[in-house]
Amino acid sequence: MRRLQQRIGYPFRDTSLLERALTHRSLGARNNERLEFLGDAILGFEVADQLYHQVGDADEGQLSRMRAHLVKRETLAEIARELDLGSLLRLGPGELRSGGQARDSILADATEAVIAAVYLDGGIDEARAMVRRLLGRRLTRPASEIRAKDPKTRLQEQLQAQGAALPEYTVVDIHGDQHEQTFRVVCSTGLTEDTEGEGPTRRKAEQAAARAMLLSLEELA
Amino acid sequence: MRRLQQRIGYPFRDTSLLERALTHRSLGARNNERLEFLGDAILGFEVADQLYHQVGDADEGQLSRMRAHLVKRETLAEIARELDLGSLLRLGPGELRSGGQARDSILADATEAVIAAVYLDGGIDEARAMVRRLLGRRLTRPASEIRAKDPKTRLQEQLQAQGAALPEYTVVDIHGDQHEQTFRVVCSTGLTEDTEGEGPTRRKAEQAAARAMLLSLEELA
Repeated sequence: MRRLQQRIGYPFRDTSLLERALTHRSLGARNNERLEFLGDAILGFEVADQLYHQVGDADEGQLSRMRAHLVKRETLAEIARELDLGSLLRLGPGELRSGGQARDSILADATEAVIAAVYLDGGIDEARAMVRRLLGRRLTRPASEIRAKDPKTRLQEQLQAQGAALPEYTVVDIHGDQHEQTFRVVCSTGLTEDTEGEGPTRRKAEQAAARAMLLSLEELA
Repeated sequence: MRRLQQRIGYPFRDTSLLERALTHRSLGARNNERLEFLGDAILGFEVADQLYHQVGDADEGQLSRMRAHLVKRETLAEIARELDLGSLLRLGPGELRSGGQARDSILADATEAVIAAVYLDGGIDEARAMVRRLLGRRLTRPASEIRAKDPKTRLQEQLQAQGAALPEYTVVDIHGDQHEQTFRVVCSTGLTEDTEGEGPTRRKAEQAAARAMLLSLEELA
């Protein structure tokens, strides 16, 4: 437990909160489920705030997708493994036998519960700072990728480098009045599901669809 | 705009943030969509924190449902109407003609954007305090309902008062080892969709299902 506090960079006043955060519901009523609920909300806020400030040229849909990528189960389980949370988890005998300490869902929940434990012990600023430390490079990577000026160019280059076919863009919808039109475009690569983009011009909608495709391909990798 | 700042109880240093929060995307690129993304996350955090502390006996699923009820579009549009946001919204001519200033989705988005504007202008503590003011009684009502000891009894009394049939409870699943069993129970009233509850005993699962039914019926009302 002492090493965990070093790894997360936060020394607890009340370590019983940290113990609670590591206690799975299979061990009884005093478990980490409520902490997980709270930690999920703190994580969502801090990631939203970081993306809002770092990625000034992303629209709401792009910000939402970037956030979803950062707070998804796999990412949180990855963080739990970096912290070696698995070895500190308190599980009931059934979960222990079936390898619960290595399961993504249980690890991800514990990561969120630890965030809430830091919040309850040290306040919102400590919790937010820890979220930034835990996410680390993951938080700045999508930002720098989005900042690059032209997603269509980057997608084309990436596909060419893989020897794949060029992407196809299709306008699937145009709606709104003459001067407030919204274009919806689908981007197809055949490598993963088609992505969509919207924008006030065809070009902007294509760029949005290309950006979504780049994120999808990254998740695939 | 001055009256709005009085109503929300926060005087802006930079009122251009508030103007931005009230600008719909139909008016151009400088709109409130990114603020809405950020405000949604702040709202979600503060509501989670309030419910966590106020409703000590609710499990994660119940907390999630209570939060969903508080941050849903209809609730946020209701708040926007209390603040008279509609009359201050900046909409493109098409949206104005079609009555966009009265539409729930546009009003709810503006409420979230205003929360983010307060955050960017005054910091997280100001934004959280305003969320509590805006939600007001709505925030404490679910808490006091959940605190009441016995949801099954309350549901029965409520249905009898309405002259409706008594609820039926059915165990639909039991899983887990002998000493870590989880029961899943469905509650049917015929008045709305069936609800589910889980718990370590049949009785607790029934109480959880009854509590979910009470929330569903409240949403219906």
